[in-house]
Amino acid sequence: MATDYKTLAGQEFDRGAFESLLRRKVFLWQSFEPYGATKGLFDYGPPLETLEAEVINIWRDHFIRAEKMMSLKCSMLTPYQVLKTSGHVDKFADFMCKDPKTGEILRSDHLIKDVIEERLKGDRIARGENVSDEPEDPKKKKKSKAAKTAVKLDDAQVKEYEHLLATLDDQTGDDMGAIIKKHDIRNPSNGNEVEPPVAVNLMFQTQIGASGKEPAFLRPETAQGQFLSFQKLVEFSDGQLPFASASIGYSFRNELSPRSGLLRVREFLMAEVEHFVDPESGKKHPKFASVKDVKLPLLSRDVQQAGGSTPVEVTIGEAVATKLVDNETLGYFLVRIMLFMQKIGVDQKKLRFRQHMANEMAHYAADCWDCELLSSYGWIECVGCADRSAYDLSVHMKATGQPLHIREPLKEPKRVEEYVAQLDKKKSGPKFKKDAGKVQQALDDLTQDIKEKLSISLEKDGKVEVEVPELGKVELEKDLVAIQKEVRTETMREFIPNVIEPSFGIGRILYSLMEHAYWTREGDAARSVMSFKPTVAPIKVLVVPLQKDTRFASSLAELEQRLDDESISFRVDQSGVSIGKRYSRNDELGIPFGVTIDYQSLEDNSYTLRDRDSTKQVRASLDQILEAISKMVKGKESWSDVQKHLPAFEGKEEDKE
Amino acid sequence: MATDYKTLAGQEFDRGAFESLLRRKVFLWQSFEPYGATKGLFDYGPPLETLEAEVINIWRDHFIRAEKMMSLKCSMLTPYQVLKTSGHVDKFADFMCKDPKTGEILRSDHLIKDVIEERLKGDRIARGENVSDEPEDPKKKKKSKAAKTAVKLDDAQVKEYEHLLATLDDQTGDDMGAIIKKHDIRNPSNGNEVEPPVAVNLMFQTQIGASGKEPAFLRPETAQGQFLSFQKLVEFSDGQLPFASASIGYSFRNELSPRSGLLRVREFLMAEVEHFVDPESGKKHPKFASVKDVKLPLLSRDVQQAGGSTPVEVTIGEAVATKLVDNETLGYFLVRIMLFMQKIGVDQKKLRFRQHMANEMAHYAADCWDCELLSSYGWIECVGCADRSAYDLSVHMKATGQPLHIREPLKEPKRVEEYVAQLDKKKSGPKFKKDAGKVQQALDDLTQDIKEKLSISLEKDGKVEVEVPELGKVELEKDLVAIQKEVRTETMREFIPNVIEPSFGIGRILYSLMEHAYWTREGDAARSVMSFKPTVAPIKVLVVPLQKDTRFASSLAELEQRLDDESISFRVDQSGVSIGKRYSRNDELGIPFGVTIDYQSLEDNSYTLRDRDSTKQVRASLDQILEAISKMVKGKESWSDVQKHLPAFEGKEEDKE
Repeated sequence: MATDYKTLAGQEFDRGAFESLLRRKVFLWQSFEPYGATKGLFDYGPPLETLEAEVINIWRDHFIRAEKMMSLKCSMLTPYQVLKTSGHVDKFADFMCKDPKTGEILRSDHLIKDVIEERLKGDRIARGENVSDEPEDPKKKKKSKAAKTAVKLDDAQVKEYEHLLATLDDQTGDDMGAIIKKHDIRNPSNGNEVEPPVAVNLMFQTQIGASGKEPAFLRPETAQGQFLSFQKLVEFSDGQLPFASASIGYSFRNELSPRSGLLRVREFLMAEVEHFVDPESGKKHPKFASVKDVKLPLLSRDVQQAGGSTPVEVTIGEAVATKLVDNETLGYFLVRIMLFMQKIGVDQKKLRFRQHMANEMAHYAADCWDCELLSSYGWIECVGCADRSAYDLSVHMKATGQPLHIREPLKEPKRVEEYVAQLDKKKSGPKFKKDAGKVQQALDDLTQDIKEKLSISLEKDGKVEVEVPELGKVELEKDLVAIQKEVRTETMREFIPNVIEPSFGIGRILYSLMEHAYWTREGDAARSVMSFKPTVAPIKVLVVPLQKDTRFASSLAELEQRLDDESISFRVDQSGVSIGKRYSRNDELGIPFGVTIDYQSLEDNSYTLRDRDSTKQVRASLDQILEAISKMVKGKESWSDVQKHLPAFEGKEEDKE
Repeated sequence: MATDYKTLAGQEFDRGAFESLLRRKVFLWQSFEPYGATKGLFDYGPPLETLEAEVINIWRDHFIRAEKMMSLKCSMLTPYQVLKTSGHVDKFADFMCKDPKTGEILRSDHLIKDVIEERLKGDRIARGENVSDEPEDPKKKKKSKAAKTAVKLDDAQVKEYEHLLATLDDQTGDDMGAIIKKHDIRNPSNGNEVEPPVAVNLMFQTQIGASGKEPAFLRPETAQGQFLSFQKLVEFSDGQLPFASASIGYSFRNELSPRSGLLRVREFLMAEVEHFVDPESGKKHPKFASVKDVKLPLLSRDVQQAGGSTPVEVTIGEAVATKLVDNETLGYFLVRIMLFMQKIGVDQKKLRFRQHMANEMAHYAADCWDCELLSSYGWIECVGCADRSAYDLSVHMKATGQPLHIREPLKEPKRVEEYVAQLDKKKSGPKFKKDAGKVQQALDDLTQDIKEKLSISLEKDGKVEVEVPELGKVELEKDLVAIQKEVRTETMREFIPNVIEPSFGIGRILYSLMEHAYWTREGDAARSVMSFKPTVAPIKVLVVPLQKDTRFASSLAELEQRLDDESISFRVDQSGVSIGKRYSRNDELGIPFGVTIDYQSLEDNSYTLRDRDSTKQVRASLDQILEAISKMVKGKESWSDVQKHLPAFEGKEEDKE
């Protein structure tokens, strides 16, 4: 997939040249460079930091404001107990193998994959096949050169290895341990045997305060804070479901060996929505009708199981009607996600929705679709849209005893008949003393079936036996307990909402967006362009006085003041090189519009306005130019609109070089 | 100070009522409430999260865009070595005392202060004075009730205690240990003796990866990441000083015992600017002339030393001219800080700039001014504006050997005469072998003075002795070394810029802003209002249909659509209560404008627009109303402007209740 990847102009994508541009224009770099850089941590320079801010503002407007979501900011530092309950302490882990001689830590699945792939490659070389060295990961390439040897394997072995690679994602730690032993898999960099796989939790641990009594983690997702704020959401919304919270914040994963640049990092910005619905509502969405005719590229579970990878274009109305997408709410969010991607300028031909396979989902999840974006690394999950059911609220409610549920009046009171087992307080108190509560709790916890059986036994035998936690079996005589059917009227309904969760990885989206925006001018690979949409471009306007001449000073000052008055960001390039060159090097920053001040400007107060993508220009008065820019950076007009009402300027950029 | 604190309407500030509003309208709460809440960590609900986003957007516009700062996003996880170099590992600490019996950790200065204040209070009671229980901290109040006993002290003792409190901030750990011993200071909650003060670092520690070889901290400030990105800033700006970077991000302090709500927390958002200047420029600022007539309330070091606390209103031009403020750059930023505070709606009567006393500043700092905001907790530092000199870049450059400096061509080449000591390589190589480099380094490190002396000795005695690290004294004969005066021409200048750092604590600013915005309607303390400026208010418009009536549905839908089209946030309140009540309860969210849909709206498409602060109303067409709202939320018009061109509406709110 990666090798087929094309730029938006249909050119071969040259990742080396692209990464060189990112470095040169300080979009990003590994953090702490002077100290040797730290893997999996990145700093953003001015272009990327500002791009992120613009994307986040659009996200806020598109989701929080337009959908009236309740925005939350929750703490990153999270007490141990919260993440114990959520399951992260026990399950949020990768397996690693230690090289006991060097102390090196290797991710078990990476280790197996690297070694087996090398052997298969060696086999192909021995068989005289052409082995291309896809440079998927520069580090891997280096290693492979050192380790690769042409050793022919027998056909059964090749088959076993290929099967092993295909099923690697499904293996447990013990499975991987057996594979490592059976196939004598060793540390490829030195041939050392490695220790069996051990689960290593991926959370960063620390402690709050100095007492040592408050172990804590940096959160691995923003979701838990939102669940624990559930009662606040109920208060703010008067408890009217459906409602949604949204949170934009950082999460952390202590990756054992980070790869793939911005796509797998240790500290990352997420934007997560928790949309709470009444499970009895059929997960309908009030605004579904407004989106039902929008077409989405959907790659279903069934197609994937049959080995396919081509999405089907289908309206979300049809997809929900045929149950391809489980429910309206999930469907509504898929559409909103796609519209968001359009707004920020993602190439729509490089976007698809892929349904999770059954074994990819958490056991409690009902359905899950990923919005994937195509980059030179292949299709990458950038947004997960999962139905988390009532899992999280349920476990936290159970662990804390706090009411993380909705109580609402029933439309009609409900008559409920059920067995109730009740200790006689006067007699049980003296007998059980402080344990009386435990006994009553054990009675309350019995199912209706058992209560019914016990009521019959009690009638028949005059006593029953009940298992009480901490106390063991307790015998209750007839005078101590009553078990009988009672009738009561319920007026309130209590239930735990289900949650649909669209979860955005902002760093991955930004990386994909940068790849999508990158291309080079025809005939000149050195003239590269970042075609960011005017609405997200980090800097909106490039101002270029024709040359260094003090006569331009007052026009320049006026133009700067006018742009400032409109809060439009701009850069002035007064360096001595030609205008063409100045435009060209600022195209790499993705500045969508350029304004030239020339000698005619001094005479008639007219300026040329240049469009980055087409390099076409118009010429008009300062007021007209500013109005056009202002509308375009707000997304209210496009360049072709502007071309229609402002006269073209014929002077070519090349002429000025 | 705290007790004198008044609301913007001049009323006594009732912190209990204010905090109750914040809870009720879910502005904020302690994080992880269902798990018992964690001290020093806060979650923001929708009103405060959105307020923060609005304030940050204004900050970005006011500083990053308008001042053309280079925005950076740097990692929060920070390797040990970085913070070792910066001094934080050794010096970023508080002293604590442990209660060995309970394991409780007490901050030493808090412990001493609490106990001594109690004794002084007991003395005043014994002397029959009236002791008011200022509820500065609800927890302290509780403790004091338990501990307070009326014991009269002799006058000398009272004096000693008072002096001790006044000088407590200056005490070292050993000093505090001596005080605790001398005055028998014990844990106030149980009377236990405590262990001597121990320095506890305030950074959260963790580790990167699973190897145990990468200890790391959560950063205590965003500044270090900016310093380590210095070379990127040079590349992006072509090295033209002055230039500035800016970073909005989270920092962490593991406070031992957090107090005072949002004012002292463990995880907090900062906005920090690092403005780099050439130390030989006199720290002039190119835009200083544009602000020189702005008046600032300045509380100087001298006034404070003389016991005063009243700032002087003076223009920044005068302040810099008289050296009250050290330089133009510092002065320029003080003005920009004040203008920012005005933009977000800080009460200008509750703002002052306080100069640091000499002992408050780091040893390398040249001058430092805090922008303090008055709240019911007193004057609180919300922005620090310090001159950090060249300290940080210097120490990192020294530790890493990376060039964190500026190289620029000298205007005129400089002739330099200096002594050079050079080993004869042919002869010194065989003699010193691998140590030859060390000897040469030791020679290079000698000062000019010493080289001159050695050159004379060498001439006279035919040999010199040099101290070489790791080797000790080394004798060098004349044939091994030449020491003579050489002349060369320098064309480049290398220097480390100085840094002016305005550093904003966003949480403290938000808290102060909320207190400044809070007041209650005359005659009705229950009708409280949050008077956020329209530009920062979390929700801009309240829409209230007169009553539940399906005939309003289409007008409502149109109004909603029109507000959405303008990206103006709004809330619809369709509950059954009176319009007056609906306005009143949404005043607590600080919604600045209200639009009523009534029966007349259905006839002539006119609506009433209500101003939160004055409760005055105008009535106009939908287009006019929307235009007025749009201008006001962008800060381009005020309510009084709107009143001038739209007709007043006479129907009183009270009539509708």
